[in-house]
Amino acid sequence: MFPKNCWYIAALSSELRHALTKRTIANEAIVMYRTAAGVAVAFLDRCPHRLVPLSMGRLDGDALQCGYHGITFDHTGRCVRVPGEESFPDHFCAQTFPIVERFGFVWIWLGEREKADAELIPQALRWQSEPGWCPLSDYFYVTAHNQLLIDNLLDLSHEAFLHQGTIGNQAVGETPAKTTIRGDQIEVERFMPDCTPPKLFVAAAGFTTNIDRYQRLFFVPPCTVVIEVWAVPAGTQDKSKGLAWWVINSLTPETDRSTHYFWALPRNFKQDDTAMTEMLRAAVNRTFSEDRTMIEAQQLILDKVPLESRTVYTRADQAPARARQLVAELVRREQQPATPASA
Amino acid sequence: MFPKNCWYIAALSSELRHALTKRTIANEAIVMYRTAAGVAVAFLDRCPHRLVPLSMGRLDGDALQCGYHGITFDHTGRCVRVPGEESFPDHFCAQTFPIVERFGFVWIWLGEREKADAELIPQALRWQSEPGWCPLSDYFYVTAHNQLLIDNLLDLSHEAFLHQGTIGNQAVGETPAKTTIRGDQIEVERFMPDCTPPKLFVAAAGFTTNIDRYQRLFFVPPCTVVIEVWAVPAGTQDKSKGLAWWVINSLTPETDRSTHYFWALPRNFKQDDTAMTEMLRAAVNRTFSEDRTMIEAQQLILDKVPLESRTVYTRADQAPARARQLVAELVRREQQPATPASA
Amino acid sequence: MFPKNCWYIAALSSELRHALTKRTIANEAIVMYRTAAGVAVAFLDRCPHRLVPLSMGRLDGDALQCGYHGITFDHTGRCVRVPGEESFPDHFCAQTFPIVERFGFVWIWLGEREKADAELIPQALRWQSEPGWCPLSDYFYVTAHNQLLIDNLLDLSHEAFLHQGTIGNQAVGETPAKTTIRGDQIEVERFMPDCTPPKLFVAAAGFTTNIDRYQRLFFVPPCTVVIEVWAVPAGTQDKSKGLAWWVINSLTPETDRSTHYFWALPRNFKQDDTAMTEMLRAAVNRTFSEDRTMIEAQQLILDKVPLESRTVYTRADQAPARARQLVAELVRREQQPATPASA
Repeated sequence: MFPKNCWYIAALSSELRHALTKRTIANEAIVMYRTAAGVAVAFLDRCPHRLVPLSMGRLDGDALQCGYHGITFDHTGRCVRVPGEESFPDHFCAQTFPIVERFGFVWIWLGEREKADAELIPQALRWQSEPGWCPLSDYFYVTAHNQLLIDNLLDLSHEAFLHQGTIGNQAVGETPAKTTIRGDQIEVERFMPDCTPPKLFVAAAGFTTNIDRYQRLFFVPPCTVVIEVWAVPAGTQDKSKGLAWWVINSLTPETDRSTHYFWALPRNFKQDDTAMTEMLRAAVNRTFSEDRTMIEAQQLILDKVPLESRTVYTRADQAPARARQLVAELVRREQQPATPASA
Repeated sequence: MFPKNCWYIAALSSELRHALTKRTIANEAIVMYRTAAGVAVAFLDRCPHRLVPLSMGRLDGDALQCGYHGITFDHTGRCVRVPGEESFPDHFCAQTFPIVERFGFVWIWLGEREKADAELIPQALRWQSEPGWCPLSDYFYVTAHNQLLIDNLLDLSHEAFLHQGTIGNQAVGETPAKTTIRGDQIEVERFMPDCTPPKLFVAAAGFTTNIDRYQRLFFVPPCTVVIEVWAVPAGTQDKSKGLAWWVINSLTPETDRSTHYFWALPRNFKQDDTAMTEMLRAAVNRTFSEDRTMIEAQQLILDKVPLESRTVYTRADQAPARARQLVAELVRREQQPATPASA
Repeated sequence: MFPKNCWYIAALSSELRHALTKRTIANEAIVMYRTAAGVAVAFLDRCPHRLVPLSMGRLDGDALQCGYHGITFDHTGRCVRVPGEESFPDHFCAQTFPIVERFGFVWIWLGEREKADAELIPQALRWQSEPGWCPLSDYFYVTAHNQLLIDNLLDLSHEAFLHQGTIGNQAVGETPAKTTIRGDQIEVERFMPDCTPPKLFVAAAGFTTNIDRYQRLFFVPPCTVVIEVWAVPAGTQDKSKGLAWWVINSLTPETDRSTHYFWALPRNFKQDDTAMTEMLRAAVNRTFSEDRTMIEAQQLILDKVPLESRTVYTRADQAPARARQLVAELVRREQQPATPASA
């Protein structure tokens, strides 16, 4: 069960062409394409006639023709042809979904159409298209519920144990983080002065000494975690000799046990260095592979044992616990019948 | 849930030898063989002692010996040996099923034994053994409920979209069919004058002009669809320059989501041309592979969403809808307790 | 559902080292290792913090460190470190299980800890460590409920049909066994005078004539079957020209449909002949492979059809039937609430 009245990332903008692309999002099978004019379109991937996947059909100009009996829908979903029948009712149509492109991603709205306001797309991703910041984004697949990935990101102490080859150092395990929870705002901050630089930081910024390392993360319901990161040579406050980036993680649910992991890593240094970009892409994918191995194993256990059977809690569990509450509250609110305007 | 008081094709006659052959039919595991005299025999594939598959045993003459503890049954199912025991009760036996060979197929009756009348085997398959007609039959496996294949065959407009490489032309999509439903009789007829010949028709009969194309199909409950087909050069009515065949489709259920697709294509031209026979075999198997791809995808959707959630209906849906009613009625009738003769 | 207040073999002693070994036993995921001092230790394979597998962590000396957030437990399960926190409650701990090594096997107790008495480990396995007997043991995996393997062993008439290449001869199928049931004692005895020696007996003892063959088996609840075997040249009673061994079968449940088959075959002849040992190991594994093929097929049927639907019973079914009762009684007794000492 996932919230539906929200924007989910459905694809990287670069993934969509004038061709059919299928993807399941929050348990809904979706087929997407661009019209000849480049406008992104999303249909439920199910012909309303015999329920076969529309993704097995073909584009006829900007229209989508089912591959089984040839019934054809224009890009708004309206039926424009039933082979062998001269006329058919006006209400024949396929289901489509609001879709918007922003920050290099394609966003879809699966809930009530009239609530689909593009202004609700989280501004926290704007660093991907901000001047002075070099964009980098990619896609990753994990066979686990997206909540387990949110839990993972909201307690970064695991970096010290799971990611020693890239972003982990001892300090991130040992330094208590400061968690601030105000209503639906969740923020976790950790400042690690004079610590050993993680391997990836050395590779990216050439640190030769200890560093002052900073991370601040916040949760954007229902499934985005943004991490502000900077590091400078210890004690120098010299940002020109350091690094800064945002780690943007948007964890679109596929099903109750699988997730589309869309990520971005805009940075403010060596913006034109494509070798640096590809080095960072590889390092992030490696890091997330380490998370995936652990979290897919955790999912197999949670398939049988509820998380509530845990008996050890840490202070670092506050943020993930609050994030779970917020998402559960969104789901609960969508399920309850609307309150009448007057009693 | 499938009707049981009916004949299902269990095998091509050519498949059965003096050896054990196993196949699941309508959710019942069956093991079949021929006696030395060539008589076909069918057992439930389950030893009544420890429930292991009898198909893992061996033939001892015409008797079937379980491979686990050696208990042996004659070809009528009567127990003839329990190793280590000199005597055993007369009622020890394995379950067998009525079985009949006709039209090149082996037919099995899974329901009440006393109702198994060979005269109920559909005569519609007789063209396979009629003088002047060249027989051709084969077997195909589909991971979908047999009803989806029946739906498919009872609305042939899909040929125009799914089978453009073999039997599809534009006419079969655009020409409305005439559906006649009288009680449990379902017939669909389509005459397509002066149309482009489908590729397979050209390959089979060498058409060089447009053709008049005819198809008439009818449903034989619970799972057979027979299609009469002919085509002649347009406007000529010259059957000597045309082709005629019957497409016989008998869709024996294996389980609730898999089907044994037995088919035959008796034809009245080039009866001794084995190259033609093999060309047709390949073309039919290719055509049914195209159906299979679509229908297995449809099954995966129907595993989660009921067909009743469809919102677009066409006139061509009448025949498949009626066929579903007929089969549901057969199942319903078998499930209700017999009515007492008098009240 | 399996009894828990009993000792199960969890591993061959030779399998455990100062490294993490995981195995599921009676539906519980377990991780085992030896301390530096060689003491065997067993944990529930689940970190009490986030429920990830502890087997994905690492040994830190004799302590077990979770691979996710680095929480660390000493070999008794007591938490000794939570990274980033200076102190934590005394009750933080991971679940461990009593474990004992005996007769070359590692035994685990999954039930109430205070009832774990090492004296309950079955003495019937002692031949593995008895002077004058050459030990031999191995491990085998079967995808079936352990009860089906117990059934199998308690009716050895199947040897005549399933194991003709190793231990089967006609006599074991044809000679009725004597079954003795007294309370929870189940014993089956079969003496086969002047019979053809099975192939493996010839290979092991070089018989050139018929033999007198003896087997006596008994059941040790919940899952061990021990078989005493001897054979001598027919009519000679000359044990120096014969063979004797014990076939020890301990069928630790993994899940409701899979079993860890631990076996041993201590023998009293050619004790120092390692080629003989390896020949016997190969022959036993081959024999059990034959059982496995049959029993995994039986399991697939029992997934759908209850064993109670069987209609053929033999006298040889008495022992397996009684063993099932005994195990069911153990489970039943563990599930009912303890009776108050006084009313």
